[in-house]
Amino acid sequence: MKALVHDGHRTIALLDRPRPHLIDPTDAIVRVTRSTICTSDLHIMRGAVPRALPDTVLGHEFVGVVEEVGPGVTRFSPGDRVAVNCETFCGECFFCKRGWVNNCEHGGWLLGCTIDGCQAEYVRVPLADNAFTRIPERVSDEDALFLGDILATGWWGARLAEIEPGSSVAVIGAGPVGLTTMMCARLMNPGSIIALDVDEARLRCAIDHGLADIAINPTGKSQTEVEALVREATHGRGADAVIEAAGSSTTFEAAWRIARPNAVVVVSAMYEQDQVLPLPQMYGKNLIFKTGGVDASGLDEVMALIEAGKLDTGLLISKRYPLNDILDAYRAFEAREDDCLKAVITPWE
Amino acid sequence: MKALVHDGHRTIALLDRPRPHLIDPTDAIVRVTRSTICTSDLHIMRGAVPRALPDTVLGHEFVGVVEEVGPGVTRFSPGDRVAVNCETFCGECFFCKRGWVNNCEHGGWLLGCTIDGCQAEYVRVPLADNAFTRIPERVSDEDALFLGDILATGWWGARLAEIEPGSSVAVIGAGPVGLTTMMCARLMNPGSIIALDVDEARLRCAIDHGLADIAINPTGKSQTEVEALVREATHGRGADAVIEAAGSSTTFEAAWRIARPNAVVVVSAMYEQDQVLPLPQMYGKNLIFKTGGVDASGLDEVMALIEAGKLDTGLLISKRYPLNDILDAYRAFEAREDDCLKAVITPWE
Amino acid sequence: MKALVHDGHRTIALLDRPRPHLIDPTDAIVRVTRSTICTSDLHIMRGAVPRALPDTVLGHEFVGVVEEVGPGVTRFSPGDRVAVNCETFCGECFFCKRGWVNNCEHGGWLLGCTIDGCQAEYVRVPLADNAFTRIPERVSDEDALFLGDILATGWWGARLAEIEPGSSVAVIGAGPVGLTTMMCARLMNPGSIIALDVDEARLRCAIDHGLADIAINPTGKSQTEVEALVREATHGRGADAVIEAAGSSTTFEAAWRIARPNAVVVVSAMYEQDQVLPLPQMYGKNLIFKTGGVDASGLDEVMALIEAGKLDTGLLISKRYPLNDILDAYRAFEAREDDCLKAVITPWE
Amino acid sequence: MKALVHDGHRTIALLDRPRPHLIDPTDAIVRVTRSTICTSDLHIMRGAVPRALPDTVLGHEFVGVVEEVGPGVTRFSPGDRVAVNCETFCGECFFCKRGWVNNCEHGGWLLGCTIDGCQAEYVRVPLADNAFTRIPERVSDEDALFLGDILATGWWGARLAEIEPGSSVAVIGAGPVGLTTMMCARLMNPGSIIALDVDEARLRCAIDHGLADIAINPTGKSQTEVEALVREATHGRGADAVIEAAGSSTTFEAAWRIARPNAVVVVSAMYEQDQVLPLPQMYGKNLIFKTGGVDASGLDEVMALIEAGKLDTGLLISKRYPLNDILDAYRAFEAREDDCLKAVITPWE
Repeated sequence: MKALVHDGHRTIALLDRPRPHLIDPTDAIVRVTRSTICTSDLHIMRGAVPRALPDTVLGHEFVGVVEEVGPGVTRFSPGDRVAVNCETFCGECFFCKRGWVNNCEHGGWLLGCTIDGCQAEYVRVPLADNAFTRIPERVSDEDALFLGDILATGWWGARLAEIEPGSSVAVIGAGPVGLTTMMCARLMNPGSIIALDVDEARLRCAIDHGLADIAINPTGKSQTEVEALVREATHGRGADAVIEAAGSSTTFEAAWRIARPNAVVVVSAMYEQDQVLPLPQMYGKNLIFKTGGVDASGLDEVMALIEAGKLDTGLLISKRYPLNDILDAYRAFEAREDDCLKAVITPWE
Repeated sequence: MKALVHDGHRTIALLDRPRPHLIDPTDAIVRVTRSTICTSDLHIMRGAVPRALPDTVLGHEFVGVVEEVGPGVTRFSPGDRVAVNCETFCGECFFCKRGWVNNCEHGGWLLGCTIDGCQAEYVRVPLADNAFTRIPERVSDEDALFLGDILATGWWGARLAEIEPGSSVAVIGAGPVGLTTMMCARLMNPGSIIALDVDEARLRCAIDHGLADIAINPTGKSQTEVEALVREATHGRGADAVIEAAGSSTTFEAAWRIARPNAVVVVSAMYEQDQVLPLPQMYGKNLIFKTGGVDASGLDEVMALIEAGKLDTGLLISKRYPLNDILDAYRAFEAREDDCLKAVITPWE
Repeated sequence: MKALVHDGHRTIALLDRPRPHLIDPTDAIVRVTRSTICTSDLHIMRGAVPRALPDTVLGHEFVGVVEEVGPGVTRFSPGDRVAVNCETFCGECFFCKRGWVNNCEHGGWLLGCTIDGCQAEYVRVPLADNAFTRIPERVSDEDALFLGDILATGWWGARLAEIEPGSSVAVIGAGPVGLTTMMCARLMNPGSIIALDVDEARLRCAIDHGLADIAINPTGKSQTEVEALVREATHGRGADAVIEAAGSSTTFEAAWRIARPNAVVVVSAMYEQDQVLPLPQMYGKNLIFKTGGVDASGLDEVMALIEAGKLDTGLLISKRYPLNDILDAYRAFEAREDDCLKAVITPWE
Repeated sequence: MKALVHDGHRTIALLDRPRPHLIDPTDAIVRVTRSTICTSDLHIMRGAVPRALPDTVLGHEFVGVVEEVGPGVTRFSPGDRVAVNCETFCGECFFCKRGWVNNCEHGGWLLGCTIDGCQAEYVRVPLADNAFTRIPERVSDEDALFLGDILATGWWGARLAEIEPGSSVAVIGAGPVGLTTMMCARLMNPGSIIALDVDEARLRCAIDHGLADIAINPTGKSQTEVEALVREATHGRGADAVIEAAGSSTTFEAAWRIARPNAVVVVSAMYEQDQVLPLPQMYGKNLIFKTGGVDASGLDEVMALIEAGKLDTGLLISKRYPLNDILDAYRAFEAREDDCLKAVITPWE
């Protein structure tokens, strides 16, 4: 079969690889019907994720059809249409039992990182019973495509933020994760969503699709000015909840600045540098920082919201490429060609 | 009357001052029966708290008898024996309504900081209806003395830490706040409490009084060694909950290191420096940091626990001094003479 | 001024009464701009509410303009446009502190029951600081009219029901309270709302306005048949949450029957008879019954949802009558003339 | 092997039965080291539990040693010392995923009811991975004996009751379940526990072991008098939380009467009759009724509390009988000989 492989030194190539087969009894083989490219795929191909193994098939965000299951898989059968979690987990260890599946003692983020991923015709998925969310009949593959990674992240971030009806919610970053975060936050009936991004096209997208009520572009503004703009929009108090989905020192500082006292600041971005927490300065603020990465579990209710028409990620799909042209897709995604948000990979033609 | 006044340049003096009188209708005058000295009093006298006003009477942790109330005070009357919150708050603003009284729009920490405090014979308490907790008959003044400040802080820290029955709880710092934190954490039925401090006498105190099950003295150990000791005591995972009550860069780093993935880290100490949050390094840990200062409200239930004999702070009282000798008390407290935990000030003789 | 007075024996009359004046320092006088008639007004005029006092002005659901405030009222001033809670409460007693204001030790449901109510030109409102919700500029009087009673009840019922995204919610009764309950439940992103009522017009209203997804008319059906219909719509399990807003023995029985195991059953209706709880039969069901009456407090966030266009009660208004014609309004409301849901009373002309 | 078998018509007999063997891959065989007799065993032998099958080995509360496991059992091995849940559940269905294991679609209460139970030398336990709690080394078999049934019930009832520090908790019934309920409630730091029972010896036991602070014997008192006694002990308000563990109409009525407004009433008893819920009379009370049966899952933390010495059920053990004499044990338990609380069955001698 065809598969996209990286060497950990910025080179990716579309190669012939043997079709995967079952190894453990809890494995399943999935025929990929749609996949996408994530920013973390770029990190990996550039060698910026130390634990990622070179010569591995990239990709971890996808949907497909179950082709084959091991004897230990009880909840899914060949022919099932499924969205796949980006994480692998056992469901039984100390952490899994408490819902913290990305700290699973036997799993974590493996697909497209330490084992072969989904940018191929077929993929082996370990611990399949915990990895899949069934796609209902009236939900299309593309409607479900982002469930297991960026939509899960948006849902997780919005839930962690403890949004109440009427809350003001600031989301820093209006890229794919920022936009899914706003979609999910919107379902919690906030009074307003404030989007912050330096990319005017992305801000416009957030406003035009009704995901944000207020857009702030910090370009050319000091932190104090940005803080003042947010306060102006929040009864002078600062945002009731902040979700930092951008990942730089500037945006981290903005996050705690624009939060009102006693706010929750969800840090859902991935950072490449240490950040400074100016505790003396924020002593009176009583902020709660929730740091970490998505737990892509319990997605049945998110799928139910997709089915009910309450979550529509169609706007993220900028362009489709057959697997044959995946190198073009990488180039367009990396360069944000035509404001590309997400490039979708369709089957080999 | 006699009162302890500071000049913001390290000098304190016992002076004659006029007895305070009611100013606002919601004020009360309290005759102080017991007060104590806090580490923050030392900060203020040294000029390290910029908003503190010189020439002000020090002190904010005390109990007393209500002498006089303004016409707007409805819940208390002269003769009532009361513990006093270190914070002043209106009870009606956006923040107070949500229980975040130390962000009250009309209050905050005033006593002994920006208005005259309690190290005197009498003190004026603003917004008295929200400032007092009634002392039941069978609770002595000394039993209730720490309620409004360090016991409130211990209670707040232990509640924020989301301790469950069987949890392992690490408390960094075994000084007065660390010890009250352990007392309150104990009430939540943790599996074990681990005390960390560089002062062997304080650790011994925690163990001897049954407040901690395990004592770790980091002196001469690397962060990695301390982390390993905590893991050894926690099924190899790290502590389920961490409360940082010490306030240095070393202890801040220890706090996130010794926490298990998905732990809550309560930062209840006051810091003099910015801290570093190494987000790339802790990406997988999914920690929650709760920062800030105590909300000394809702203390009726803590008083009920004192009355029921479940919270006994007697062990903190190292020595008593009449107000006449308060300068000696400051000296002993600052120098930790005879392992002094708390010096208690009794009335002028 | 003109006021509607009842004699507790089915007779109501529009009489001249003296304009009310302040009695306690915490009172306010409100000029009524819109009021409505409630089913409980009918109960009172028929003598079915023992504690209601005859010769009292009826009515407790209204909005108006503050005319005058006592010296103890601090949050509102003459000229403020306000929605008024149906309940009077002190905000400071044991129950109020915990948010259970309808068990206030000094208040409860007084207006139009034991003291003069709002079906008049002016009304005295006790404990005014806790009684009002400010109406924002872009919210009309009629938009805010139902806030303090039936919208509060709908909000309270929907919150108590512990609805999760994707939940199936059954609401029994599609009258005014049932409809506001569905509106509020809708904001919690349920998978489906199932309305049950014997009145076909009301069911149609619920469906046509998008408040319910499924309508079930139990007329001519056995309890078992109704139960089967609900199961069919809920994966064979029964509803995840049930809100009983009708108030008969038949609907009470339906409530626990159509609930799935471990569901919450909110009993928000007022009953005239004792009900039977067949505990042996429901042993395995592990149901939670929440009984009682609305706590009409904390309505700022509901007002924010009205302001944001997320709660629109306009559909409830069947017809308007000036105070001059309030006797006609009572007749139409009682007889459900033209499917009357709510009759709105406008000022005297 | 020897086993106690009933005929569903009041006759029990100690018979020779074949030793059980594995049937499903998720089964385990346990050698019983300690078991006890439950009131529900009496119900079954009398034919009062319709779904119970005659000619079945009785008993569902026990500890033992794993002898053999099927190939689908992954968490336990032969030689493990375990406490066994009274319920069988899959851990994967809609209800199990939400923690409501006694509504498991594939399980429920089977042992000693519809399949052979534990009053024998060996017992087959289905779905063993979910059925066991490992017994730590320093916990004896008898210390762990009640974990899977009555201690689980006490824990479940106390948790459902939403007890806060300082709460007043009334427990109706001071039999084995009532006493374990008090033990667990005590861990939540209530202000007081009030025990109600008509059996003076049981009340004395509750007081003498420090499980209750106040004992009320309703014998010869009217409901109003009992209500008045509870109010007197609870600031005139009624109990903050009520747990009904007795199961008669009298005790059901007492439960809602002695509760304060807005209390939680946990109905953890098994009833043989329907009960009356006088909703008009309790309209203002806003009570929450939690009905149903224990979910004996998640008992690791309860075991941790046993290990830490915080839960000691030793006082329940009135007498020990070898399996040889189990008929004597039944007689003594049923007749409450010598105030028998629990009769413990030791291995065949």
